[in-house]
Amino acid sequence: MRHRLRSAAGCVAILAALLCAALARAADPLASWNDGAAKKAIVEFVASATRAGGPGFIAPAERIAVFDDDGTLWAEQPVYFQLAFAFDRVRALAPQNPRWKTTEPFASILASDIKSALGGGDKAIAEMVMVTHAGITTDEFAKIVADWLATAKHPRFDRPYTEMVYQPMLELLAYLRASGFKTYIVSGGGVEFMRVFSEKVYGIPPEQVVGSTIETKFELRDGTPVIVREPAIDFIDDKAGKPVAINEFIGRRPVFAFGNSDGDQQMLEWTAADRGARFLGLVHHTDAEREWAYDHPSAVGQLDTALVAGTAKGWTLVDMKKDWKRVFPFEK
Amino acid sequence: MRHRLRSAAGCVAILAALLCAALARAADPLASWNDGAAKKAIVEFVASATRAGGPGFIAPAERIAVFDDDGTLWAEQPVYFQLAFAFDRVRALAPQNPRWKTTEPFASILASDIKSALGGGDKAIAEMVMVTHAGITTDEFAKIVADWLATAKHPRFDRPYTEMVYQPMLELLAYLRASGFKTYIVSGGGVEFMRVFSEKVYGIPPEQVVGSTIETKFELRDGTPVIVREPAIDFIDDKAGKPVAINEFIGRRPVFAFGNSDGDQQMLEWTAADRGARFLGLVHHTDAEREWAYDHPSAVGQLDTALVAGTAKGWTLVDMKKDWKRVFPFEK
Repeated sequence: MRHRLRSAAGCVAILAALLCAALARAADPLASWNDGAAKKAIVEFVASATRAGGPGFIAPAERIAVFDDDGTLWAEQPVYFQLAFAFDRVRALAPQNPRWKTTEPFASILASDIKSALGGGDKAIAEMVMVTHAGITTDEFAKIVADWLATAKHPRFDRPYTEMVYQPMLELLAYLRASGFKTYIVSGGGVEFMRVFSEKVYGIPPEQVVGSTIETKFELRDGTPVIVREPAIDFIDDKAGKPVAINEFIGRRPVFAFGNSDGDQQMLEWTAADRGARFLGLVHHTDAEREWAYDHPSAVGQLDTALVAGTAKGWTLVDMKKDWKRVFPFEK
Repeated sequence: MRHRLRSAAGCVAILAALLCAALARAADPLASWNDGAAKKAIVEFVASATRAGGPGFIAPAERIAVFDDDGTLWAEQPVYFQLAFAFDRVRALAPQNPRWKTTEPFASILASDIKSALGGGDKAIAEMVMVTHAGITTDEFAKIVADWLATAKHPRFDRPYTEMVYQPMLELLAYLRASGFKTYIVSGGGVEFMRVFSEKVYGIPPEQVVGSTIETKFELRDGTPVIVREPAIDFIDDKAGKPVAINEFIGRRPVFAFGNSDGDQQMLEWTAADRGARFLGLVHHTDAEREWAYDHPSAVGQLDTALVAGTAKGWTLVDMKKDWKRVFPFEK
């Protein structure tokens, strides 16, 4: 009888422990992060930032978190996704532009020779961006991007590009917002390209997306006001442009910044260079199997000087292979 | 006895009525607005926008309200307050710039001959803005503005400039925010000038202030990252620039827009030119006694074509003298 009772009590204890563990797992806001230094650093920073009266406390209004997009929130291989959009746009517009068959970089794009197309350097890319991104109103452009996102598929994973986002980073965005942080994208990508999907995919509204811009102009068309996208680059939101854009658009210095490439280095340095608690993070692409492995040299998202700076300054380095239990939401 | 009872009951009824009226007044979020067409239009729009399932319902994420600053949220006479700041700054910097005694527009400013100083037109004003607003870091500039706001007084009212704000508009901002609207400033004023006081004075955080900008540059000074204000205009957020800036910074079309001058006309037209419920408002300065009376011609805040357009299109015209019970918070 005593033995039976003890067993029952033990059984209850075991069940309770299992239940607690299950609840703890369910309640873990960063469930796709493996336990390790990166996850620990995030959780400790947020706990400290939200502990009123503590030494690391950050007032809610100051809880500004900025994220690069390409390679930080979604993938960027084999080419930046906005470039894939531009290539598809060239193909769609080719019938109306017969000259493109013999003009670079268009001829190479139409021949699916992307390496040659990009071989023309910045000038060729700028020319392609102008013909695919300008000469239309902002409303027309948003519709073209939305239509493309609804139909285009990633060449390796055969998934819509908006599914090529990192599950651990989606969890991090939600975790930060639940802790009173305002999450922003600060990306080299075109701002009007990203705003089409940022709210639905990341929970980040258009007004919290900062990016590269082309010139726009207000005009009346048949008496109706429109904003027209002009064929001229206005601002490149990359490298030293990132802190400049943060200052111009947000007007506050962030306390939390996450990137993955040398293009993010100045953003992280600017975030770090003030009094008070700060979190600086870099995603290191180390998983050739589930995603890609690259740092430097790389034509896309090169991570070289920022890795050296981050290592020296103790920034949080996320080793994708080790730190992420799951990479994409569609993984089993 | 019966008489006495009736009296007591009557007394209670009267007291109850008085109490109810007092409570109603206390609960009026627009207490400084007189009952009239303008107040009615605002209240009806907000009620309709927040009535779920109703024909005028606006989803919370789309509740973007934009306000001009000079002449709409605070006064702008006898000169735009940022110009008063620039004049004071010229005076403060004069000892280090002896040449200014004989160079325009500085000589006129130092002689307090504002009319001659402004007579040099846009070029003279631009030159003055450059020497008073550039060549320093963003942090240094913010401190100079804060120090000026803490000490400078308005020449007519002998009050700090941050008290020269309109009580009815402060109530309107709070009322909109309580109804789920996100309130923005979209002003021709310098964005880094306004951000110094916008949160404290209007409850509008820096990231919701859009304005004119000068070029800025990221650089390392003794290893510390700083952002330096360069002597070159980047963008003038006025007239057709306002819808362009709204599109670039906010990335959504507002549903509510308030201005007071021709510089706001395109912002209101852009706000109006889409499906769904919209509120368009113009402050008309009609009160020479409590504030100023001016529309056109006026060197400051001219209201001419926008008044014609607004009248034709049924925008809400606020007649300051009739519609506002109180203009400034410091009024008895």
